[in-house]
Amino acid sequence: MEFRIEKDTMGEVKVPADKYWGAQTERSRNNFKIGPSASMPKDIIYGFAYLKKAAAYANCDLGVLPEVKRDQISAVCDEILQGVHDDQFPLVIWQTGSGTQSNMNVNEVIANRAQELAGKTIGEGDKTLQPNDDVNKSQSSNDTFPTGMHIAVYKKIMEVTIPGVTALRDTLQKKSETFMDVVKIGRTHLMDATPLTLGQEFSGYVAQLDHGLKALRNTLDHLGELALGGTAVGTGLNTPEGYDQLVAKYIAEFTGLPFTSAPNKFEALAAHDAIVETHGALKQLAVSLNKIANDIRMMASGPRSGIGEILIPANEPGSSIMPGKVNPTQCEALTMVCAQVMGNDVAITVGGTQGHYELNVFKPLMAANALESATLLGDACRSFDAHCASGIEPNRDTIKKLLNNSLMLVTALNTKIGYYKAAEIAVSAHANGTTLKEEAIRLGYVTAEQYDSWVRPEDMVGNLKS
Amino acid sequence: MEFRIEKDTMGEVKVPADKYWGAQTERSRNNFKIGPSASMPKDIIYGFAYLKKAAAYANCDLGVLPEVKRDQISAVCDEILQGVHDDQFPLVIWQTGSGTQSNMNVNEVIANRAQELAGKTIGEGDKTLQPNDDVNKSQSSNDTFPTGMHIAVYKKIMEVTIPGVTALRDTLQKKSETFMDVVKIGRTHLMDATPLTLGQEFSGYVAQLDHGLKALRNTLDHLGELALGGTAVGTGLNTPEGYDQLVAKYIAEFTGLPFTSAPNKFEALAAHDAIVETHGALKQLAVSLNKIANDIRMMASGPRSGIGEILIPANEPGSSIMPGKVNPTQCEALTMVCAQVMGNDVAITVGGTQGHYELNVFKPLMAANALESATLLGDACRSFDAHCASGIEPNRDTIKKLLNNSLMLVTALNTKIGYYKAAEIAVSAHANGTTLKEEAIRLGYVTAEQYDSWVRPEDMVGNLKS
Amino acid sequence: MEFRIEKDTMGEVKVPADKYWGAQTERSRNNFKIGPSASMPKDIIYGFAYLKKAAAYANCDLGVLPEVKRDQISAVCDEILQGVHDDQFPLVIWQTGSGTQSNMNVNEVIANRAQELAGKTIGEGDKTLQPNDDVNKSQSSNDTFPTGMHIAVYKKIMEVTIPGVTALRDTLQKKSETFMDVVKIGRTHLMDATPLTLGQEFSGYVAQLDHGLKALRNTLDHLGELALGGTAVGTGLNTPEGYDQLVAKYIAEFTGLPFTSAPNKFEALAAHDAIVETHGALKQLAVSLNKIANDIRMMASGPRSGIGEILIPANEPGSSIMPGKVNPTQCEALTMVCAQVMGNDVAITVGGTQGHYELNVFKPLMAANALESATLLGDACRSFDAHCASGIEPNRDTIKKLLNNSLMLVTALNTKIGYYKAAEIAVSAHANGTTLKEEAIRLGYVTAEQYDSWVRPEDMVGNLKS
Amino acid sequence: MEFRIEKDTMGEVKVPADKYWGAQTERSRNNFKIGPSASMPKDIIYGFAYLKKAAAYANCDLGVLPEVKRDQISAVCDEILQGVHDDQFPLVIWQTGSGTQSNMNVNEVIANRAQELAGKTIGEGDKTLQPNDDVNKSQSSNDTFPTGMHIAVYKKIMEVTIPGVTALRDTLQKKSETFMDVVKIGRTHLMDATPLTLGQEFSGYVAQLDHGLKALRNTLDHLGELALGGTAVGTGLNTPEGYDQLVAKYIAEFTGLPFTSAPNKFEALAAHDAIVETHGALKQLAVSLNKIANDIRMMASGPRSGIGEILIPANEPGSSIMPGKVNPTQCEALTMVCAQVMGNDVAITVGGTQGHYELNVFKPLMAANALESATLLGDACRSFDAHCASGIEPNRDTIKKLLNNSLMLVTALNTKIGYYKAAEIAVSAHANGTTLKEEAIRLGYVTAEQYDSWVRPEDMVGNLKS
Repeated sequence: MEFRIEKDTMGEVKVPADKYWGAQTERSRNNFKIGPSASMPKDIIYGFAYLKKAAAYANCDLGVLPEVKRDQISAVCDEILQGVHDDQFPLVIWQTGSGTQSNMNVNEVIANRAQELAGKTIGEGDKTLQPNDDVNKSQSSNDTFPTGMHIAVYKKIMEVTIPGVTALRDTLQKKSETFMDVVKIGRTHLMDATPLTLGQEFSGYVAQLDHGLKALRNTLDHLGELALGGTAVGTGLNTPEGYDQLVAKYIAEFTGLPFTSAPNKFEALAAHDAIVETHGALKQLAVSLNKIANDIRMMASGPRSGIGEILIPANEPGSSIMPGKVNPTQCEALTMVCAQVMGNDVAITVGGTQGHYELNVFKPLMAANALESATLLGDACRSFDAHCASGIEPNRDTIKKLLNNSLMLVTALNTKIGYYKAAEIAVSAHANGTTLKEEAIRLGYVTAEQYDSWVRPEDMVGNLKS
Repeated sequence: MEFRIEKDTMGEVKVPADKYWGAQTERSRNNFKIGPSASMPKDIIYGFAYLKKAAAYANCDLGVLPEVKRDQISAVCDEILQGVHDDQFPLVIWQTGSGTQSNMNVNEVIANRAQELAGKTIGEGDKTLQPNDDVNKSQSSNDTFPTGMHIAVYKKIMEVTIPGVTALRDTLQKKSETFMDVVKIGRTHLMDATPLTLGQEFSGYVAQLDHGLKALRNTLDHLGELALGGTAVGTGLNTPEGYDQLVAKYIAEFTGLPFTSAPNKFEALAAHDAIVETHGALKQLAVSLNKIANDIRMMASGPRSGIGEILIPANEPGSSIMPGKVNPTQCEALTMVCAQVMGNDVAITVGGTQGHYELNVFKPLMAANALESATLLGDACRSFDAHCASGIEPNRDTIKKLLNNSLMLVTALNTKIGYYKAAEIAVSAHANGTTLKEEAIRLGYVTAEQYDSWVRPEDMVGNLKS
Repeated sequence: MEFRIEKDTMGEVKVPADKYWGAQTERSRNNFKIGPSASMPKDIIYGFAYLKKAAAYANCDLGVLPEVKRDQISAVCDEILQGVHDDQFPLVIWQTGSGTQSNMNVNEVIANRAQELAGKTIGEGDKTLQPNDDVNKSQSSNDTFPTGMHIAVYKKIMEVTIPGVTALRDTLQKKSETFMDVVKIGRTHLMDATPLTLGQEFSGYVAQLDHGLKALRNTLDHLGELALGGTAVGTGLNTPEGYDQLVAKYIAEFTGLPFTSAPNKFEALAAHDAIVETHGALKQLAVSLNKIANDIRMMASGPRSGIGEILIPANEPGSSIMPGKVNPTQCEALTMVCAQVMGNDVAITVGGTQGHYELNVFKPLMAANALESATLLGDACRSFDAHCASGIEPNRDTIKKLLNNSLMLVTALNTKIGYYKAAEIAVSAHANGTTLKEEAIRLGYVTAEQYDSWVRPEDMVGNLKS
Repeated sequence: MEFRIEKDTMGEVKVPADKYWGAQTERSRNNFKIGPSASMPKDIIYGFAYLKKAAAYANCDLGVLPEVKRDQISAVCDEILQGVHDDQFPLVIWQTGSGTQSNMNVNEVIANRAQELAGKTIGEGDKTLQPNDDVNKSQSSNDTFPTGMHIAVYKKIMEVTIPGVTALRDTLQKKSETFMDVVKIGRTHLMDATPLTLGQEFSGYVAQLDHGLKALRNTLDHLGELALGGTAVGTGLNTPEGYDQLVAKYIAEFTGLPFTSAPNKFEALAAHDAIVETHGALKQLAVSLNKIANDIRMMASGPRSGIGEILIPANEPGSSIMPGKVNPTQCEALTMVCAQVMGNDVAITVGGTQGHYELNVFKPLMAANALESATLLGDACRSFDAHCASGIEPNRDTIKKLLNNSLMLVTALNTKIGYYKAAEIAVSAHANGTTLKEEAIRLGYVTAEQYDSWVRPEDMVGNLKS
């Protein structure tokens, strides 16, 4: 491999000649061989591209950066956002906890690529742009990394998580309406209970997701607050007057998202409670989705020796040894994702607690986990929606059979003969293997006519409009 | 001990003669000897008292319960809320996951105490009130327990958590204002950084708690939704028309809190995402408080060989072996509470995922953990506020000494001579054990006059109004 | 209330006249009003009683404490261990993180009670024993608290956890043997699979608990290491030569457990990885028990519209609204306990990470959570054993019906006709609602005789000795 | 792109013509677009390669597979283990929870590559090997995936985790010996305490890692148990007599690791407590490493306004805005890894709880998280060792200055004048800003000579051999 020499304040470093990155990136690459290379999420890099461009515009507007440099920076940022430089960001999550090295990676790539775009040779002659003095002007890693991660996570939630969850929610809502008259047995404690309709059951899932989406949206105000302008410790040292507001405005414009400048920059650097808050809502969605996926696989269990109340799409052969087996694989993928999100929540919580003085140095960890959760939840909901939820159908015969078997229909008699006599009927039927009706009449508590008019599953499911 | 015989649908049970509880309570007491007795939080019992009274009123208004029974139920509920029957609730958290046995405990105590208030002997003659048919009318454990736990947690948050956190927040805000001009060294990565003021540092803490309180309040809508009226599976079987809305209105009236009837009762029984949501915000507060307490103990460390920038109250002798030692004990109590809340969050998360079909049967676990977190956070903030935060004072001599030592004051030169020359100055001073000014002049980058006018810590802390 | 005046190095404090505790206990009581009072587990106090007595003996043997003082200390320790002074320990978990205040609580109670036993009046005349110089001789909170918590947790595991888990394990083993010939359908992915016996299923539970018990025992070496002798920072300052070994020997003798002196006292004070390690094994048991309890409630579900393959004892009426309902309440209590243990594991993990320099100050948190988990798991296993596991019976009719329905019996044909033809049979039977045999013959892959001799569930369950 | 047609029991699927995989892999690829593609760890695939080869050998030895097929399977497995087919495994973690699709991916790749090696065209003519009947002979996904994951995790622990942790442990041990005479101030509660040596401090770190490594090794017995031979539900259906033992012997031989056949195959399929157990030990190591890394960064803090007792290597410029700043970046990477491992532990715990009946379907989640933790911990320890620990040097001047300042040296007087007088000295010196000696003499408790002979830090650190 060919190399060129790059320099930073610590001296010279050999860098692969075909890469734009510079000395500090290379130092980090050599000093942090932890896990797979290039694990720092690209979404963070794109977040940086937005903010570097916005900073160049704001700096220029405020008179501290010439237009030509603004445009050079901006041009490379646009290239990065098109994805053409994805191989220029080799660093890992497990680096300095401020993400300084990824900030410098971006600064160095922008500077060297601008050198090339200006028709010069990288590493030779005057620098078109200085990574620290120009590209990083009015910035610090300490305010850029949190800004980049807020941009990345916010975008992911808007583009992947919310649409994915919403698509599933809408399918479940449609199913709920379609199944609103399918009366089935209810189950509490996994045991037979009074009836409800399959549509009512699904309406509960919809309500869960609606609450979860609301909870997630509640966190976006905090997540929309950007640290940029705080620089090293939150005081805004080395930034021009008005810069923090202006740069946030540009970021909002470039991303199309309602970002604002954090009212308190000290909090925005030293704590990442916004990530904790947002991920708390993602975890809540995981809790909800876990319940939904579990219910669906239990109701679809069988085909002959399980519950079998619903049918789900058969997408793949389910077993390498059992011929003809089909499994609720989408439920499994989704619940595995939920477990991962619950784990990620703890990683983020632990990281969030450990800010010290003016800086939290668990930034890459927190960002990477939040992005993973946001992506996995969105993707898994889409997958579950397309390959499972939208194909769910009731197995009406089984539903009817299981409903009519239930001893808990006796509950309808509570208001007629009281809880204690009703219990006696159910207990007798259970003990004798008889039907409720037989026992109710045998015990002399109701007539056959009364039983038939009082114990009607379809009358026990309440107002179906709810 | 003397006993009397009580009966339920399973038969006879011997119950201590001096207790109001009945057969089902006694069965649970015998069948669940897990951990300390009577661990079911009293706040849950009080929540039940509110809802039993409200149900009695609603049932009466809707014509399914006579006024006399309403008043009998109501009278005992009022006694329970006064705390006079605390020894009548011997059950543990670790019982049936629906809390049925605690619901029946309340039903039985109300019925038997009403018997006594009516001048009759418990266990003899006609029952003044039937536990299931009267006290539990239009109810099921499945909707009462979640209602009771929402009432209990909501009240705890309003009465303990929010006031406790707010008191601490207000003290920190006052300190922030008082300390706004105390310029000190900033620290990032635990390493010396550019200056800020002690007041700015504290303003970050205030911002954290403000965000946390807002996040907590965001969850109260969901927590304010009551399951009552859903009865067994969410369909509202055996409730009179309009009951769910009316009973929620009564609960709101009796508690003075804005409770509403859950729009979807299936979600309200089968999932407890509202508890997950609320506890997520409690966990966020724990994350914030952990950061704050950690900072304070690090800044107060010493007294001679630590950081020593602030002084905190000396409340107790700190060591049984080291004479004269004083420790940041309130920080320790608070951070232990934070760790507990983080653990409780996982317990609640796990419980929340495991609703099956129409019921989540981790209710007592979820309620107990949420109540513990809400209580501990509120109490610990009050304690920390009273015995630590309100007594914090800056140690101005130490602050000044550490500030003036810092090599990071060189950052002020970035915009004058560029990052790279500034770095050279800092590196030289570090290597030679000299001052920045000496090196700056020696290297010929600035004059003494320039240095003095450019490197002024008090000019490096930005706009103190922020 | 009457008070007396007690003094410590900070001055005078008013203490309730009828209590043995002194100034430092009272300060803590006033300064830490967090959660319920007296929450510091009594088991920790008893652990202290063992070690105070052992320290007195070791100090006496080594010539630094007179025999009379040894016997005075020892006498009060014995009283404490009999439980007669339980009301003398009013402090909470949420105090100083070293537990200094509980150490002093014990020191003060011992000193004042000894004063009383010596026929003197507390607070008057010469002190029979000095809390710090005599009772705490050769000790520091920093080595006593970890010693006390190791004693407490070790004892709890030996006396509650292991016996409780073992009792359940033995019952499951007996059930496994009894049910070894009950051939039933297997289920993977909750879907019908090839057969096994109910006894084989239960043998998996036994294997889980055997592994869990082994894992728990693996941690006892580390937990058996005692910090005592390290004093303030691990160097053993102010202890006589040979003291650490001797005091550990006495503790081992007094408790009957194989405690040893920690080879490295610095680790024993600054880290509590032994608690982390032991609780990791408790958490593993929780994971196992959760699986077992879940299986049992699923297999017992019904009675008519669930799986219904086993019958579990009906211990309590299951519903306040549904007459005759019986629920798997022991499974619910046990799985709630498991969720709590999982949460406690995170609390302990977080506490364990935060030792700083020579001391971890999350000791009371870690101890309290470990004790809770050890107690709950042991108690819940005993309860589950007595009220559920030992009463489990197979529902042979249902088992047989579900077994014979299964399409996965076709797997037996793999080795005869290949996976792909076998799949064709199963898929056809599923689609046509026919039996495997019908389709196998119709498709011409086997004769009726071949089918009957090849597809025999009882031949598909392997070697029942395993 | 060009395609060929592949078939499975569900019908035809178009597959990229240049890939070896078949219908089931392609179905999974299309049905599970969740997160980045090909996320299933390659280590799992290699684990499969070992076991497929071993199964072929065992099947051949037992007479159910001809030698020619054994050698064909074996040849492709060897190629896979050389890494040449890494691009043939496109599936994600978030698929079916049994990992069936990855098992089939391996089966299909082996079959089609063998077809090619046999000189035939893939998809044409007779199949050289049938994926299910030959490659998967005597196997099920249900026993192969857990076997593959045990192989992968075991190897990772032996090859990455243990060597990485051990390397760091050995460096810390060397440092401990080198620093054994560097007397420094101890700190408890972050506050000044009695002295110890820097070497003693480091010996505590070594003890932590020794305990952690022992705990990790304790888990290897369970992890070494292989499910293979259990096939679909643990009964070993469709395996020849003696197969399970033989295949485990071959795996042990091929991997050089002491694998055994799980004594209970039901546990080995339905529960993955072995992964829970092993990861518990990884989490314990994370707890220990977090403490160590935290201590080191606190001791290295400064350079001028922190603690500054040790010097760590300056590897990279630490700030994009603060010139000359150097940060404890290796500590940050390591503690971020620790937080991730703590999170992964919860993901694994949640996954581990949810086995149902004969199968746990959180296998890929559990495997991926365990592999990530094992890799990150090993890598991060190596990185921390090479770039931080091995370069740690004491800053003797600072250590001496901070030591001599400490008021806690007064503890040496406890055994001479008692705790209470010693406390008076310390409190006075603190209040008056004087030295201990000055106050000790002033108060008349000791003479200057006594003070000098009694208060000697170097005598307060105990036996340095420990």
